[in-house]
Amino acid sequence: MGEADGAQSVTAALVVIGDEVLSGRTKDKNIGHIAERLTGVGIDLREVRVVADVEDDIVAAINALRRRFTYVFTTGGIGPTHDDITADAVAKAFGVPIDVDPRARALLLEYIPEKDLNEARLRMARIPAGASLVVNEVSKAPGFRIENVIVMAGVPRIMQAMLEAVLPELEKGVPMLSETLLADAKEGDIAAPLKEIAARFPDVAIGSYPFRDEKGEPNAHLVVRSRDPQVLAAARDAVAQMLAQRDWAG
Amino acid sequence: MGEADGAQSVTAALVVIGDEVLSGRTKDKNIGHIAERLTGVGIDLREVRVVADVEDDIVAAINALRRRFTYVFTTGGIGPTHDDITADAVAKAFGVPIDVDPRARALLLEYIPEKDLNEARLRMARIPAGASLVVNEVSKAPGFRIENVIVMAGVPRIMQAMLEAVLPELEKGVPMLSETLLADAKEGDIAAPLKEIAARFPDVAIGSYPFRDEKGEPNAHLVVRSRDPQVLAAARDAVAQMLAQRDWAG
Repeated sequence: MGEADGAQSVTAALVVIGDEVLSGRTKDKNIGHIAERLTGVGIDLREVRVVADVEDDIVAAINALRRRFTYVFTTGGIGPTHDDITADAVAKAFGVPIDVDPRARALLLEYIPEKDLNEARLRMARIPAGASLVVNEVSKAPGFRIENVIVMAGVPRIMQAMLEAVLPELEKGVPMLSETLLADAKEGDIAAPLKEIAARFPDVAIGSYPFRDEKGEPNAHLVVRSRDPQVLAAARDAVAQMLAQRDWAG
Repeated sequence: MGEADGAQSVTAALVVIGDEVLSGRTKDKNIGHIAERLTGVGIDLREVRVVADVEDDIVAAINALRRRFTYVFTTGGIGPTHDDITADAVAKAFGVPIDVDPRARALLLEYIPEKDLNEARLRMARIPAGASLVVNEVSKAPGFRIENVIVMAGVPRIMQAMLEAVLPELEKGVPMLSETLLADAKEGDIAAPLKEIAARFPDVAIGSYPFRDEKGEPNAHLVVRSRDPQVLAAARDAVAQMLAQRDWAG
């Protein structure tokens, strides 16, 4: 449906880092959660990229996106094993050094006895120079934020804790409001009047999402979205009225 | 874990087109299915992008990816409503004209009575010049393939039918084989010996995926991947032996 109102919006992109998602072994659950949460606070998620555990690919994605969007979130690749290369990739993307950060090390020690804080676990305290930490109460191992890039864990429960920890400090936009109407019609029958309504409300995004109902009949959800409650109500009423008439010309 | 063996691999990227995924309203189910299916036939999914229903964004993603990978798949945006702009965006990406295709129109008529084949439904028969059709038995409305770009529906059942229809005509690689071992250990305890094994088997991708077991204890799945069954077995045995020793130095 296009960008209905771009002027002052706060935008974001997400980089999901993980061979396991690209191989299909792990079914990603973070995209949906982050999308919903950001939308709810008025940060528009505009693009998601899933990339492999390959440093050049991670660097390229972060550098392409951090210049285009207000924020870039990443998930995955910040654990203690050799395949956890996100922190180093982010440091490289920003051209800054990376080393064990005393603040992060102290956080790890809240969870891990000092005798167990081996070199591998200390990898989780490697933070690019100039970054602030993003705490999490689940595992203590922190994510971090450098400029507009926010680096989070891939394990959903830990990622969610980090997202909640960082959200209060982020700029928010006016949340996109939405209303969903059940078409009780085939998309192809209502497409013409729906297009006419979409043209009449250029600042409203109107999406049509087909599905089959319990009887196997084609149906659709119509989603009307705007940041302005009055405009949203007017567009929703126009769609509802169109649906009620049921005299759609072929 | 990086690219273990890139020489002759067949690669793919996926572009998921849909505001509804970026807003969190729809939780994508296509990425996981496509990832698993392509991996199974030896096509390596290397990148996924989720983009909005914005023509410029779709064109940019397709043009960036179709030059880098053997195949680019897209899902979403090929229905009859005004927000279905994928076919036009793909035509633009290739710089070719687009119009109602008689073959696609004939397919629609197998499903839709001619009196109902209005302008909106005919949108589903708009196919870029030079493309071949990708049939589907579920809705009849076809996807299409132009050069190395394969355009599919967003509704999972229809997308899956299209993927099965097109797979036989695609080049396949040697499938990546994988074995998963339960670590029964904390990632941080085994990270050092695991790294050593990863270095010893540079052509094998070894990933570590942490989770909490039923008792809430940290554990991990170790996934060993290679296209060569003998190399895979050797690496898996090395990992299994390391896990059995349980004398990992801190």
